[in-house]
Amino acid sequence: MPSPSEPSAEAFSATDHLLMARALRLAERGAFTTRPNPMVGCVLAHGEEVVGEGWHQRAGEAHAETLALREAGDRAKGATAYVTLEPCAHTGSTPPCADALVAAGVSRVVAAMRDPFPKVDGAGFERLAAAGIEVASGLMEKQARELNRGYLSRMVRGRPWVRVKLATSIDGRSALASGESKWISGEASRLDVQHWRARSGAILTGAGTVLADDPQLTVRLGDDTPFVPPLRVVLDAGLATIARGRVREGDAPTLYIHAPNTKLSRGIQAELATAPVQAGRFDLHQVLRLLTERGINEVQVESGATLAAAFLEAGLVDELLLYVAPVLLGSKARPLFDGLNIQSMADRMELDIVDTRQLGEDIRVLMHPVRQRDAGKG
Amino acid sequence: MPSPSEPSAEAFSATDHLLMARALRLAERGAFTTRPNPMVGCVLAHGEEVVGEGWHQRAGEAHAETLALREAGDRAKGATAYVTLEPCAHTGSTPPCADALVAAGVSRVVAAMRDPFPKVDGAGFERLAAAGIEVASGLMEKQARELNRGYLSRMVRGRPWVRVKLATSIDGRSALASGESKWISGEASRLDVQHWRARSGAILTGAGTVLADDPQLTVRLGDDTPFVPPLRVVLDAGLATIARGRVREGDAPTLYIHAPNTKLSRGIQAELATAPVQAGRFDLHQVLRLLTERGINEVQVESGATLAAAFLEAGLVDELLLYVAPVLLGSKARPLFDGLNIQSMADRMELDIVDTRQLGEDIRVLMHPVRQRDAGKG
Repeated sequence: MPSPSEPSAEAFSATDHLLMARALRLAERGAFTTRPNPMVGCVLAHGEEVVGEGWHQRAGEAHAETLALREAGDRAKGATAYVTLEPCAHTGSTPPCADALVAAGVSRVVAAMRDPFPKVDGAGFERLAAAGIEVASGLMEKQARELNRGYLSRMVRGRPWVRVKLATSIDGRSALASGESKWISGEASRLDVQHWRARSGAILTGAGTVLADDPQLTVRLGDDTPFVPPLRVVLDAGLATIARGRVREGDAPTLYIHAPNTKLSRGIQAELATAPVQAGRFDLHQVLRLLTERGINEVQVESGATLAAAFLEAGLVDELLLYVAPVLLGSKARPLFDGLNIQSMADRMELDIVDTRQLGEDIRVLMHPVRQRDAGKG
Repeated sequence: MPSPSEPSAEAFSATDHLLMARALRLAERGAFTTRPNPMVGCVLAHGEEVVGEGWHQRAGEAHAETLALREAGDRAKGATAYVTLEPCAHTGSTPPCADALVAAGVSRVVAAMRDPFPKVDGAGFERLAAAGIEVASGLMEKQARELNRGYLSRMVRGRPWVRVKLATSIDGRSALASGESKWISGEASRLDVQHWRARSGAILTGAGTVLADDPQLTVRLGDDTPFVPPLRVVLDAGLATIARGRVREGDAPTLYIHAPNTKLSRGIQAELATAPVQAGRFDLHQVLRLLTERGINEVQVESGATLAAAFLEAGLVDELLLYVAPVLLGSKARPLFDGLNIQSMADRMELDIVDTRQLGEDIRVLMHPVRQRDAGKG
């Protein structure tokens, strides 16, 4: 059975692009809720006429295709299905979507990309093609990959997508020498961070930040948008902070990761895990492995300058989310990345700016490292 | 004789706004050449119909009004004149523009702002009004002030407008620990800098930068756009760099400012001036006074981190032009402002972002300090 070729963009019509763009927008509605599942959107159409649409809302609940087929009813027959991810071919919480599309009599399936999930990974396409349905994949694949970069990272690389969020003065300082760092960025930036938290499976920080800033690390969107509370993760080798802090308050779960040899006091009411610590520094690859096992697609690191630099040094930063405030904190203030040691211009770390925008008084810059510092270990 | 009131924006029609905007664009064409004179544009119109326009091109040559009247000929009679600055009432290199407007029979003069130049300063408006011409001022005054901020600074504050230009990594570093700083910013940024140089009356640097980077500090626009070469100014207390460097090459003049007690070797072929030096640091107020005396409207500081910080500490930075490259140079690299010491968040230096844009891979941020650090001394 031939699996669908990856046709060039020219193979798809303007209508195809339009309806896939619609499916991608639908998929994105699941950003705060589908975890650990990928976001998926589906549009059923005859030509330009949409007869059904749906998006995956929560793991365990109906898939995008099911919802779209339900809305289309009899009109699914002969329709084209636009799906942002290959339809599943296995029975998970719900029956295979590929079978449902066959049963409903759709005549063509256009997917943005193949699903690397081992139980799918081409099997969905094959099942559709075997039933005589015309199948094409690769339409707006770049956007689809961007959308599910967390899920894809976990599936393909076996580790979560790591986003490091930092607030900085325009002269590159994360805090004053005293440690004071609150309110570097403005209100608009602090609200914006909430959306990035909401799409993260975990928010990770270090013991130093718990002690210095006492952050709650919960999602506070300011409205009733539904979201799944992200896991809060505290790296605390000696569990020095376990008795305190707002990071234990609120509805979200909290996981403490400590050194294997740490003595546990009796009666600790917290979820614990261990990862190797050497010279006071966690093995961050092992930390991420723990999160992968928990189905975390995206981790947002909201730490101080030292842990942020450690992620960079380990080659484990996929995305840098920087809120730059138009203030100067001076040359005695703390650096943005503490311990990041670069000797020559050739050794400098280059980034791609993905997005720049003004948020209130601040500038938000989203960047991807061009090459990882230490990619070999990854 | 009543001088014209400063009417609110509502007093001007949409046509008035349109034609003043045109006059402002014309004025700006003189940005590289009118120094030390202000940029001025003039549009003569009957209603929306433009009958003449002009802009001041070079000091000593015809004023904007003269050129517009010349183009309009007889059609100037009964026209409205839109001028970005109050018409002059004195005879300088050319006869008074107010008289020329009266003689041509214009019926209304709309100015963006009064000219604070002592020989004008309301006298132009008075002369027009005395001749029975309707006079109004204040249309798009903010834009007009922005355009001539250098000239206005020199006229009103008695010192040039100071723009500090710096290139930085996204983690706020101006150079590696080794001093290596070349090519932090990209090609598009380096070309952009040329336009800012071309509108500056002087480009100022320190001896350290001459030694480390050997910059030429000339304008290289890459095309045949005319410009007046800015004065190059080197702050070099002991004249240690006077024998060397590309800063002495090219067509532009170079001025060395040294400490009063520095011994001058015989046969120095360079222009010299002195300013007080204390504990190795120049009195920057005195340095700017020297430049004011030379009719410098805008100074562009292109120095290292120490001199840039000294300007900030002295409360003498009006504008910060920052080219931010998406690279990380690490926490051992040199700070953006070396010696800028801020103890508390209340003491932090706030800036207004005036403009943000992407230039190639870099982000250019233009900022004005919200309050000067040391304004009392200014």
